[in-house]
Amino acid sequence: MPEPLTVGIDFGTLSGRAVVVRARDGAELGSAVYEYPHGVVDRTLPATGEPLPPDWALQVPADYLGVLRTAVPAALEVAGANPAHVVGIGTDFTACTVVPTTVDGTPLCEVPEFEREPHAYVKLWRHHAAQPQADRITELARRRDEKWLPRYGGLISSEWEFAKALQVLEEAPAVYAATAHWVELADWIVWQLTGTYVRNACTAGYKGILQDGEYPSADFLRELNPAFAGFVTDKLDHPLGRLGDRAGSLTAEAAAWTGLPEGIAVAVGNVDAHVTAPAAQAVEPGRMVAIMGTSTCHVLNAEELREVPGMCGVVDGGIVPGLWGYEAGQSGVGDIFAWFVDHGVPPSYHEAARREGVTLHEHLTELAAYQAIGAHGLLALDWHSGNRSVLVDHELSGVVLGQTLATRAEDTYRALLEATAFGTRTIIEAFQDSGVPVTELVVAGGLIRNAFLMQLYADVVNLPLSVIGSAQGPALGSAIHAAVAAGAYPDITAAARAMGSVRRGVYQPVPEHAAAYDRLYADYRELHDHFGRGGSAVLHRLAARRREAATTVRKGQS
Amino acid sequence: MPEPLTVGIDFGTLSGRAVVVRARDGAELGSAVYEYPHGVVDRTLPATGEPLPPDWALQVPADYLGVLRTAVPAALEVAGANPAHVVGIGTDFTACTVVPTTVDGTPLCEVPEFEREPHAYVKLWRHHAAQPQADRITELARRRDEKWLPRYGGLISSEWEFAKALQVLEEAPAVYAATAHWVELADWIVWQLTGTYVRNACTAGYKGILQDGEYPSADFLRELNPAFAGFVTDKLDHPLGRLGDRAGSLTAEAAAWTGLPEGIAVAVGNVDAHVTAPAAQAVEPGRMVAIMGTSTCHVLNAEELREVPGMCGVVDGGIVPGLWGYEAGQSGVGDIFAWFVDHGVPPSYHEAARREGVTLHEHLTELAAYQAIGAHGLLALDWHSGNRSVLVDHELSGVVLGQTLATRAEDTYRALLEATAFGTRTIIEAFQDSGVPVTELVVAGGLIRNAFLMQLYADVVNLPLSVIGSAQGPALGSAIHAAVAAGAYPDITAAARAMGSVRRGVYQPVPEHAAAYDRLYADYRELHDHFGRGGSAVLHRLAARRREAATTVRKGQS
Repeated sequence: MPEPLTVGIDFGTLSGRAVVVRARDGAELGSAVYEYPHGVVDRTLPATGEPLPPDWALQVPADYLGVLRTAVPAALEVAGANPAHVVGIGTDFTACTVVPTTVDGTPLCEVPEFEREPHAYVKLWRHHAAQPQADRITELARRRDEKWLPRYGGLISSEWEFAKALQVLEEAPAVYAATAHWVELADWIVWQLTGTYVRNACTAGYKGILQDGEYPSADFLRELNPAFAGFVTDKLDHPLGRLGDRAGSLTAEAAAWTGLPEGIAVAVGNVDAHVTAPAAQAVEPGRMVAIMGTSTCHVLNAEELREVPGMCGVVDGGIVPGLWGYEAGQSGVGDIFAWFVDHGVPPSYHEAARREGVTLHEHLTELAAYQAIGAHGLLALDWHSGNRSVLVDHELSGVVLGQTLATRAEDTYRALLEATAFGTRTIIEAFQDSGVPVTELVVAGGLIRNAFLMQLYADVVNLPLSVIGSAQGPALGSAIHAAVAAGAYPDITAAARAMGSVRRGVYQPVPEHAAAYDRLYADYRELHDHFGRGGSAVLHRLAARRREAATTVRKGQS
Repeated sequence: MPEPLTVGIDFGTLSGRAVVVRARDGAELGSAVYEYPHGVVDRTLPATGEPLPPDWALQVPADYLGVLRTAVPAALEVAGANPAHVVGIGTDFTACTVVPTTVDGTPLCEVPEFEREPHAYVKLWRHHAAQPQADRITELARRRDEKWLPRYGGLISSEWEFAKALQVLEEAPAVYAATAHWVELADWIVWQLTGTYVRNACTAGYKGILQDGEYPSADFLRELNPAFAGFVTDKLDHPLGRLGDRAGSLTAEAAAWTGLPEGIAVAVGNVDAHVTAPAAQAVEPGRMVAIMGTSTCHVLNAEELREVPGMCGVVDGGIVPGLWGYEAGQSGVGDIFAWFVDHGVPPSYHEAARREGVTLHEHLTELAAYQAIGAHGLLALDWHSGNRSVLVDHELSGVVLGQTLATRAEDTYRALLEATAFGTRTIIEAFQDSGVPVTELVVAGGLIRNAFLMQLYADVVNLPLSVIGSAQGPALGSAIHAAVAAGAYPDITAAARAMGSVRRGVYQPVPEHAAAYDRLYADYRELHDHFGRGGSAVLHRLAARRREAATTVRKGQS
């Protein structure tokens, strides 16, 4: 009997990764990466060379098919796998990443009439140009006391489906009119594989404001913009698929692209962060998964619905069917460390790191790790990219207190590491204070390599910290979904137990450290509330002046 | 008729500088510098190799005589001056820098019995180990409501005469018992030149708590420490000399050291910052002199006595006889910029500066100068060395707000420049709010070289900014005092008019800049008051933890 295999594909921001996995135990047999030829389109539209306004971020959908054509066959080859043994395929995508399509799913940017129109392209998750629309949605929902608003911590993001669609309507009405479906790429890619459009429960809930079986009402939409009243009925609403379910079967065409057998199971689409939970064996209530990279995404299951202030969202079956899935996030983590390393460290440290043959991150971590807690005398707020969860305020910015003439680069570096840990603790406490238990922190993502950082997080949050066993969590998670869709397991929880991988409780909080960080954390919270909750609006004024000055300079130059 | 000349000598922290000046117009004919062989003694006592405790800073008095023996003859030679034409000599010193002496002025460290005793040496201004004594003095004065306390902004510094003497009494009673005089070096050097001990009105007032003709009472001193009751009568009190007066005549011995004629006028001693006012033609009321170097010292004359909260001191005749002299300061200015340049700037900037053949300060200034006001989105507090004036709190520390991933080194550099300008404005407003007018800012010291910084200060304080014409302001000021002492001018004001040098109103505030900085300054004041005036004690807690952690590590290592 040959061992059944599954393929998981993780569609990231710059590339897609395919992994071939043994369904029995989750062993990763081989993987391959395909970089999107167009990457992120945020300066000029390739079709015209036309410059894009600030805050735009598009993608070219054909790039994703390159992953199917290239990375999947390559992963099979690396694995030495017989494609005939593959029983299912699963995918995950960045979100909210959306595209307007025709009735048959053709992206409008591939229709000759619209190929020169930026609004016809894929809007990547980090397209932030729909902020005015998002503000209007939030404000109107607040005014109308819409019951779905608290499910999103009180704020609808400019990244999500409604804000982006409203921007299209208002800035490119012809594109809007021609849109038959407003499709998450998580579902579009499954549509390409199966020939069937199934809307996944995860993005429909977190990004599409689907709560208790209902979208925002036509009445609400009409008040936003009369021409938007029919958006849900005409362009958005569509039958849903539960996570782990079979969306359909691999078409002949997609079989030809991938080299996989026609007719195998294709799982319902999913989101990169959420699909990581089963890969880390962390779908049980109370296990918070933190996917720590440039930013951090937190996902967590619970039995009960609680409306947690400042969360990204809570969705019934948003991570696994049958549980409430909660999402939160920190908009800057690894990218704050990288920013500091690139822009705040003097030459002698660069030379020392080179001499020792380590990265600058490793060098600074080593120096910082030597210090007693509090010795640097610093305290930082981790808001260099704003605050995604708890405060949900992108006008906030970074703060450092306590510098003296004796402050050195490793001191500031450590203060920034600590600040992000305090940020995670603030999120955990927001859940706990709302009655959503968090009993364990399970970490995935690139930052798990930094053992000092992991111990610091365990000490700061004062919880046992587990670490995912796989370096390619989302792709493994998609392969787990594929196994469930193919019937190899009864549900995601069972599949996760067999195929997921975690080193449980690797880092345990040290009681003296936890006590020392408790005191520093109290100060962090004081600053957090002062600058983030109305004590002082100075960060908002600084942001406003920065924008204003940028306009002045641009005017002056023109 | 030969042109009469005078010699000014500036005794700094690390070296002494002599300048030969033409009495008629203040032309600087030649100068020379002598580095103190022992520099600052803050690690081990040279006589024993014994390590000194933290916060100690001593000097060796013989080093100062080296300036007389070496720098004075060298300056005469550089000037090509005939020593016979020199009619007077003036000196200025760091303060409060004090030494215990015998009845004839011999420093106790030169008495064999005490040469191995650290407390017998000169305590430099920045000896900060008498902080516990200073705290007790301030607290007791507050409790007793001593009327001299408000003359010092409500706080007696650990740097001053009483705190340092009390430390000697309590830590080295034998040295205290052997002390016939507790002498400011500003007066000790004049004693060496003239053979006469004259206490100058400047240090007696600013550092010796002499107000309205009285020192702190024996009753007050007894309450501090019974053995301290007689300190004023036994060791401190001594006839005063007014600034610009003739303290005495150059002795034969001092004439031999310096190569100057025996019997010429020697001016009453003075302090480096205060003596700079006449050098910058800024002794008239309303002209605030800012001596901007690693730190900034502000001196200002006024007709009226006002008790300005948080000032360093106000002294009758403290800068020129007949006016009230006010002093304030910022503990960190140029040293904050230097710290950032040394510890916060990445290699590419160092390389660019090298390529362009400029200093890193110049390179960062050039990049920063290009920005519109507010464009960096940052706001900083300039408390990296604590706050000397207005708040008078050395437990404070630096703060930076507003960092994003787009923040670059020139942004932070500019924010730090701005922060020190806001600090100066805070001091100016404290004077103005107390009824002491400030109508012009006259800048001296090393930072006058940075034209962008000067314009920034003019814009921020919204006053015309003048710049001293001399690069050796204190030494020129001492030469001016020498001319007055020699009778070449009736008073300091007249001498300053003829011999001082200033470029008046070189920088004028630009109204749009001033308006933009008004808004940023309002934010600075909000932060200043929040972190400095009780809104939040977090900076104090961070400082306490830093100290505590340092103790822990030291304990751990021993």
